[in-house]
Amino acid sequence: MSDACARFGGERADWLDLSTGINPRPWTPPEAMAIDWHALPDPAGLAHLEHIAAAAFDVDPRLCMAVPGSEAGLRALSSVLGLPGVHQPLCYGTHAEAFPSSPGASEASVRIVGNPNNPDGAITAREALLDALDRQEALGGWLLVDEAFADCSPQWSIADQVAEDRRLIVTRSFGKFFGLAGVRLGFVLAPPYLLRQLGRMHGEWPVCSAALAFGAAAYGDAAWIAATRAELPTRARQLDTVLQRHGLRPQGACPLFRLVASNNAQSLFEALARQHILTRPFAKHPRLLRFGLPADDTALQRFDAALARAGIDG
Amino acid sequence: MSDACARFGGERADWLDLSTGINPRPWTPPEAMAIDWHALPDPAGLAHLEHIAAAAFDVDPRLCMAVPGSEAGLRALSSVLGLPGVHQPLCYGTHAEAFPSSPGASEASVRIVGNPNNPDGAITAREALLDALDRQEALGGWLLVDEAFADCSPQWSIADQVAEDRRLIVTRSFGKFFGLAGVRLGFVLAPPYLLRQLGRMHGEWPVCSAALAFGAAAYGDAAWIAATRAELPTRARQLDTVLQRHGLRPQGACPLFRLVASNNAQSLFEALARQHILTRPFAKHPRLLRFGLPADDTALQRFDAALARAGIDG
Repeated sequence: MSDACARFGGERADWLDLSTGINPRPWTPPEAMAIDWHALPDPAGLAHLEHIAAAAFDVDPRLCMAVPGSEAGLRALSSVLGLPGVHQPLCYGTHAEAFPSSPGASEASVRIVGNPNNPDGAITAREALLDALDRQEALGGWLLVDEAFADCSPQWSIADQVAEDRRLIVTRSFGKFFGLAGVRLGFVLAPPYLLRQLGRMHGEWPVCSAALAFGAAAYGDAAWIAATRAELPTRARQLDTVLQRHGLRPQGACPLFRLVASNNAQSLFEALARQHILTRPFAKHPRLLRFGLPADDTALQRFDAALARAGIDG
Repeated sequence: MSDACARFGGERADWLDLSTGINPRPWTPPEAMAIDWHALPDPAGLAHLEHIAAAAFDVDPRLCMAVPGSEAGLRALSSVLGLPGVHQPLCYGTHAEAFPSSPGASEASVRIVGNPNNPDGAITAREALLDALDRQEALGGWLLVDEAFADCSPQWSIADQVAEDRRLIVTRSFGKFFGLAGVRLGFVLAPPYLLRQLGRMHGEWPVCSAALAFGAAAYGDAAWIAATRAELPTRARQLDTVLQRHGLRPQGACPLFRLVASNNAQSLFEALARQHILTRPFAKHPRLLRFGLPADDTALQRFDAALARAGIDG
């Protein structure tokens, strides 16, 4: 966003930021929620957070560890596992960066699947994931399912299959669905012996005091979670309608973002940026553009009008 | 503290916590300081924080990297360096845990020196550190100086010696001197090629949004820093007077804590805990007890009275 302001002008507050997949309507802490910044984050509070999050993910708390963001969790897992990565053709940049690919086809590896995948929003069916897990185990490797966006629809999750005797890891993100990416909180769901190795990398205080307070309250807020799960798909359909009206064909099943493939993607990015709407291009895939969900009707109408002014069809 | 309440009773608020070396009078953010929890921590804000902190440490910003607590920085450095540790006889637990000792005497190692050292508050002179650095370099190893408590007296710091062509690393902590351990912020000062490796472990968002906001404002608050540097030694001398009155001999030069060696250390720990004053024992060193600085005269008088009631001489 700093770069966008420098290149296309305008103050940060003037911009409509559709460049991320972070829920634009965040969970809001109650006014009375005080954060104790003075003391070290309380280990009992960390255990409490991990219990509440494990219940939300439907896993045994012994299989659930808080990390300072799911992105940091992926990087730490790479150090612990020490195996090359096998990736989806389109994948989150950190997957490829943290787990460099292997040239050999038959050696042990970490197969990484985003589910839903970022940036294309593709869903991998449970049966396909279980087949991939069997194949990875036969080769002595691991299946790592990045469920950073799975809170939107818990039926996508394979977290219930994580177990002491399986080579399955699931990562979860707090910041996306709850719209609080500045907190840096995520979770790794994995066999306990792997979590112990991860714990030695992050130490006793893996996340800040705000992460303990916000995380425990937000994962425990069943009413907000249910309302948000119901509301996001409705707003994603409204975004689809706007995109289609301008000849763009939205892909994906994750309600927090939509991917579009178009020969005009680069000029569309620039035409929107000149109107101070930031979207997400991909340097290696110049035909792709990702759109985050607008926060409300006003933002959606501004986006609609900007697409009309851009005059660029998909 | 949770354990202490469970074992000795009382509510957390009833206790006087002298178990840490965290400044009990924290830097306080201005009321108007808003933290943006929604967005990812801004990379430009991270660079700004690192510039301000580097100026406070008197190093080139290219040699300064923010990490989620100096403890996390030590653990990450262990992964990056991949060398055994050489420790002071009394050292911070994480030093020994993150850098397991080596049996061989002549191989490359990471020599770790706390300066001031925790828990004994000992200062290692600059000349001795430079000699140790020369010896480590001759063996292909590193000198790592943990300056978690050095903000109290900048003349202790060897940060100005960190350079691209030297094998010297300095770690700094935000939480101790500024009294904000819940934020999880620290810094690693090291040659740029080492920081790049560290950066790959922590990713683009190593610390939370509060760390960016608090850190930049606090390291830039020259008036608060000067007043606190002047005030801490005065209060440490008052603590010494109280300890000596009860036959205890305080050790160390770090004004945030004092160490005492006594045959009665264990019974003193328990007598104080029964009066809901928590101090810091050491399982491997049963004759040692560490006392954090009381926050004010009221806390110091309560500590004095509790020592009198304990009736245990050093």
